[in-house]
Amino acid sequence: MSRYWSELARRLSPYVPGEQPRIAGLVKLNTNESPFGPSPRAIAAIRAAAGDALRLYPDPQSTHLREALARYHGVTPAHVFVGNGSDEVLAHAFAALLKQPAPVLFPDVTYAFYPVYCRLFGIDFETVPVDGAFCVDLRSYLGRGGAIVIANPNAPTGIALSPDDIAGLLRARPDVPVVIDEAYVDFGGETAIPLVAEHQNLLVVRTFSKSRALAGLRVGYAIGDPALIEGLVRVKDSFNSYPLGRPAEAGAVAAIEDEAHFEAMRSAVIANRESLAASLRGFGFEVLPSQANFLFARHPAMSGKALAAALRDRAILVRRFDVPRIADHLRITVGSADEIGRLTAVLAEIVGVVSSEW
Amino acid sequence: MSRYWSELARRLSPYVPGEQPRIAGLVKLNTNESPFGPSPRAIAAIRAAAGDALRLYPDPQSTHLREALARYHGVTPAHVFVGNGSDEVLAHAFAALLKQPAPVLFPDVTYAFYPVYCRLFGIDFETVPVDGAFCVDLRSYLGRGGAIVIANPNAPTGIALSPDDIAGLLRARPDVPVVIDEAYVDFGGETAIPLVAEHQNLLVVRTFSKSRALAGLRVGYAIGDPALIEGLVRVKDSFNSYPLGRPAEAGAVAAIEDEAHFEAMRSAVIANRESLAASLRGFGFEVLPSQANFLFARHPAMSGKALAAALRDRAILVRRFDVPRIADHLRITVGSADEIGRLTAVLAEIVGVVSSEW
Repeated sequence: MSRYWSELARRLSPYVPGEQPRIAGLVKLNTNESPFGPSPRAIAAIRAAAGDALRLYPDPQSTHLREALARYHGVTPAHVFVGNGSDEVLAHAFAALLKQPAPVLFPDVTYAFYPVYCRLFGIDFETVPVDGAFCVDLRSYLGRGGAIVIANPNAPTGIALSPDDIAGLLRARPDVPVVIDEAYVDFGGETAIPLVAEHQNLLVVRTFSKSRALAGLRVGYAIGDPALIEGLVRVKDSFNSYPLGRPAEAGAVAAIEDEAHFEAMRSAVIANRESLAASLRGFGFEVLPSQANFLFARHPAMSGKALAAALRDRAILVRRFDVPRIADHLRITVGSADEIGRLTAVLAEIVGVVSSEW
Repeated sequence: MSRYWSELARRLSPYVPGEQPRIAGLVKLNTNESPFGPSPRAIAAIRAAAGDALRLYPDPQSTHLREALARYHGVTPAHVFVGNGSDEVLAHAFAALLKQPAPVLFPDVTYAFYPVYCRLFGIDFETVPVDGAFCVDLRSYLGRGGAIVIANPNAPTGIALSPDDIAGLLRARPDVPVVIDEAYVDFGGETAIPLVAEHQNLLVVRTFSKSRALAGLRVGYAIGDPALIEGLVRVKDSFNSYPLGRPAEAGAVAAIEDEAHFEAMRSAVIANRESLAASLRGFGFEVLPSQANFLFARHPAMSGKALAAALRDRAILVRRFDVPRIADHLRITVGSADEIGRLTAVLAEIVGVVSSEW
């Protein structure tokens, strides 16, 4: 604490991202990164962008990337906003859209950054409990509150809503902005982007960090009605004119155009997820039905804290959230077949023993 | 305007950056980019960072870059904050430090982004007039107002204050945060960074976009007392955990370590500036004494608007600010010898004629 901090800086409770330790040989299943590398075309494009042209500012509108995303999603470039990772896109969405007179609503179990943005921008919020099966019940979002933000599939549960569910919410709450955070949608969820055409209050947020395997490049985007996008641009242009550097824009354009690599990666992640879920259930874990690149699971005979510590002792890192309702769950990224092999071998040691005693 | 915009989004007046037109053959002297390319070591480092490791998030603390900057400036890594361009670093400084109960003070003629940040974060501000010679008079910042932000050298004038002047301000106003924006300091100004050791209220902001010729990579940083830096980190971690991607961090580390390239570039820019200033004065321009990589000049016989339009007609882009006191001035980036040759040839046509008639 410093006497020079603003009152705002004093009252923040910053988000704590998953660890990024630099330990060789670690099986890192704590931040939902892709076990496979990005598109070779993206790598080539980033290398090609590294040259004398770096002396020049990038295009502040990231026109090439917005055009590529518009082609990919069947919308116009005016429907597309891009930013320095989907966290930045979400931050701008909180300031530009979700900061309404009534409190913004989101699930009690969801991405832990949402309440952090609220504190940064002075936004009241109300959390809506997920049901006993950890599902988001959209009926609880009707007739109350201000704007709404829902991660779909939700994190850290991995459970997805259908576009019909989302459409019902949009029809019932046409008065407020609704943000659907689709960071994980490519692993089995269904996107709400087609609903943008009919619903001027819908913003869908996406990232290149998961299914595009470019967490290290920092690119995210949003699709919405051009008037919503213009609101985001107003905030972005009051914060940083050039959020995407030249290498980031070039790499993202190439990644979105490489559909073959994308399809191969996401199919492999989905197959690995189902295989890991079966193994975990074999060890006695309760595993939520995930449509994401992670599993959320608890073991009835061992606390989450003890499990995470035992895994860490054996050089396997998973994510645990020490908060009510989910403190005994682990969020386990779906890794490569090798990583899953190491995890299951170690779990056989840890919970195999516990289960036989239990 | 959309019914879904927040009240905040409605009341913003976004910053308008200099144009980034994609016109071949244009002499682009409007955004103070380097006429020379970045360090070849930086280019090599960016290319090396483009690989499978991009699937992983970057280090959220950008430890390698903060260590390199600490070595370079003779401080500790705890004195260093990094961000996605100095515009982002400044944004966080406004939220974390400059948002104080009393209005933040800055010159009436200065970087036009400062009032934009104030509107975004709900900060009252008061502008302090520069004197008749367009100099910042720090005596006007004593005994009044809240925090202070000064660009040194100032933009768009290029006029620099000495570290003694800054030290006097810090001694007189130990009660408020003081941000010195040194985007252009490497072209002849003197840095205030050594004052950080004695003054816990001083934050110095820097960029890789000008003297490091990496505007297209988006890297900026700040040096200050660790307690000030911690305030910035709290805001950053409430906004975006990973502002710098892997290519950006790698390129910036290599650039800061290539002192030979840096010295050669800045010496060339300084030499070109003095040669361009002499030519402009020869054409009858009034040229402010610049310590930056641009010149701020007006011609007594021709309006700024007419001059900028005449240059644009001849494929030369300069920057003009259509605001009181400086509407007749042009801000002209110091380009390469070739670009200066083209500019002076065109000016001979435009103002040579005007001058002979005048």
